[in-house]
Amino acid sequence: MAKDRSLLPIPAGMRDFLPGEAQLRRVLENKWAQLYTSWSYEEVMTPTVEYLDVLTIDTGEEMAGRLFQFFDRKGHIMVLRPEMTTPIARLMASRLYKDTLPQRLFYGANVFRYDEPQAGRQREIFQSGVELIGASSPLADAEVIALAVEALRQSGLEEFQISIGQIEVFNGIMDELPLSPEDKSKIRDLVAKKDFVSLEEFLQNHHLNLEQAELLLRLPTFHGGKEALEEASILAVNEKARQGLENLHQVYSALCLYGVEEYVAFDLGVLRGFDYYTGIVFEGYTVGLGFPICGGGRYDRLLSQVGYDCPATGFAIGLDRVLLALSRNQQPKTHTKPDVLLGGDDLVEIFAKAARLRARGFRVEVDVLGRQEEALKAYGRERGIADIIYFALSPREDADDVKKEA
Amino acid sequence: MAKDRSLLPIPAGMRDFLPGEAQLRRVLENKWAQLYTSWSYEEVMTPTVEYLDVLTIDTGEEMAGRLFQFFDRKGHIMVLRPEMTTPIARLMASRLYKDTLPQRLFYGANVFRYDEPQAGRQREIFQSGVELIGASSPLADAEVIALAVEALRQSGLEEFQISIGQIEVFNGIMDELPLSPEDKSKIRDLVAKKDFVSLEEFLQNHHLNLEQAELLLRLPTFHGGKEALEEASILAVNEKARQGLENLHQVYSALCLYGVEEYVAFDLGVLRGFDYYTGIVFEGYTVGLGFPICGGGRYDRLLSQVGYDCPATGFAIGLDRVLLALSRNQQPKTHTKPDVLLGGDDLVEIFAKAARLRARGFRVEVDVLGRQEEALKAYGRERGIADIIYFALSPREDADDVKKEA
Repeated sequence: MAKDRSLLPIPAGMRDFLPGEAQLRRVLENKWAQLYTSWSYEEVMTPTVEYLDVLTIDTGEEMAGRLFQFFDRKGHIMVLRPEMTTPIARLMASRLYKDTLPQRLFYGANVFRYDEPQAGRQREIFQSGVELIGASSPLADAEVIALAVEALRQSGLEEFQISIGQIEVFNGIMDELPLSPEDKSKIRDLVAKKDFVSLEEFLQNHHLNLEQAELLLRLPTFHGGKEALEEASILAVNEKARQGLENLHQVYSALCLYGVEEYVAFDLGVLRGFDYYTGIVFEGYTVGLGFPICGGGRYDRLLSQVGYDCPATGFAIGLDRVLLALSRNQQPKTHTKPDVLLGGDDLVEIFAKAARLRARGFRVEVDVLGRQEEALKAYGRERGIADIIYFALSPREDADDVKKEA
Repeated sequence: MAKDRSLLPIPAGMRDFLPGEAQLRRVLENKWAQLYTSWSYEEVMTPTVEYLDVLTIDTGEEMAGRLFQFFDRKGHIMVLRPEMTTPIARLMASRLYKDTLPQRLFYGANVFRYDEPQAGRQREIFQSGVELIGASSPLADAEVIALAVEALRQSGLEEFQISIGQIEVFNGIMDELPLSPEDKSKIRDLVAKKDFVSLEEFLQNHHLNLEQAELLLRLPTFHGGKEALEEASILAVNEKARQGLENLHQVYSALCLYGVEEYVAFDLGVLRGFDYYTGIVFEGYTVGLGFPICGGGRYDRLLSQVGYDCPATGFAIGLDRVLLALSRNQQPKTHTKPDVLLGGDDLVEIFAKAARLRARGFRVEVDVLGRQEEALKAYGRERGIADIIYFALSPREDADDVKKEA
């Protein structure tokens, strides 16, 4: 007995891309690949499945409990990769460590996170991103942010903004607080999630009525353009925080030279989730989506964890989220019509014509159902195909169709 | 302490694609996507992970014991998809069942098989393929075979051949043998694996000295062009086998009209592994690789298993295997050099120049290490970059570099 269609579910948080949707995705991914290439980035690919202990070297709390993991037949714990920065660090340290720095690498890859599915939060996520490895300068951070802006512009998104923070400003303030590493980690989580109600409560419960604790609560209020950064100078509670602010100034100056200042804003409340970030961190947002469409930052210690001590910075764009944002402005794409439909009995002519048209870039469908002329035209009209050509064998063999003409 | 690089393994049968390798892969996949599109196929994508009971509807013995499987947190058995024909049948039956037939779909996807890794046999496999759904005619089979030929030609492979069999010829002969379903399945496995020594032994052990059993042993000797098919007429032991041979004749005639006869040959020993095939089956081979680079065939009952009764045919090309075959003729690709390297103090000029050159299609690297002129040129020469431009701020601020010129 045939199975019922309702018995054909796919896993929660996973999705199909229908005709049109898959095409949009390929067009966008290729556009980005071309852009990254023009900025001198080169593509790499890594396996979908890796060993747990390699992939979780430095992704920290953010990934705990969010992994698709299983055992191989030798008892090793395998995971579906949850992000691409660690696999590329692994690739760099094990396969490209002899190559001249800096290395500019890009990827288009699916990653897997066992989150509760909701709008914009899938369990299989398509990311497009770059890593710039071997440069610690503000120019390097500015390059990847300017490249992220250019990628989002080329996607067709009209309104978006990249919020830039600096994790060392937060770390400098935290150094002044008499707290355990666990409490600091808790505070970091709350700031990263922008949960300032819980943060205030937490600080009060720990009797942290210090000036520095107040600064934590004010972090997200330092948000905007250059003037916000000037005001943030009161956050320079020590050398670490001061250097973080200075670094933000330098990166912003370079971004202005790139001419992208209209797309960037400071937000000292941006921390990102991964433990591996060490400096500039950023997130991109667009109108109407309550979650970031891209994210990235500097990770100067991750590569030393895999035996290759070297600074790096990069970003990942959430392809599905950009497509979701675009779909709110654009008509959804469905089937794409062929340009030409060919049918009839004269297969020699049909195949020759199809080959010529395809070589010239046309999309050609050849009838494989043996339709007669009227049926072919009816089918072509139903599909909205503009050009329908019927090739009859000449002279026709089937006598009742033959019409003598003068 | 930094980890040793040797502690960064990737799972057996998985691989990294380095710069150059990943680029070749993208170029080839896009070339095929463009080709399929010109033949009026449309791209679809399905999740990497699906439920076991959906994905193994009809893949039979071939996939038993070769799956990457694990439990989700609700106790469902999940698998990494081992092939793409079943997921697309599922997609067709659940999402596209209202659409006009025939549907022409294509995909580029990774599939996972827990095999013993060896040359050409990876555990993560990249496939590019098409499915033509809703047509049972020999023209439909000829179309997908001609398209497979064209895809392999466009890949740059010079010598390859597609061997075409018909599973109903084998099935017809089997109908004449007094054997249990288990024994028939065993025989099928042995023929599919071309293990004729074991087959002969098996037939003797079962005292099958019938004329029909002899025909089984002779199946692979019916191999070649049109004359081989004429000779194979002795295999027409009943109506099923006769119709299978007749169908082969028709498909071959259409392939000759497509002009691809130099790339195809009959081989009645070709059965393919999957249980879902019901008619024409084929495999592509190239010089020096002992395993197929592509495979496909007709599967007229698979879609009814998912509640959508409809004939279909298609193929999958092993992208890695084609790349492996190509690498034997071509210099392996490594890093691609940028066309232009820009550096210096005058960031306004550098960024403007970079933007202009990138818009014109050049690959431009901007120095992010603050190199002075000599260091920039030395680095550029080391990487073999043809154009190196240094932009000094003018008038220069650093007095000891300034040279007065007339």
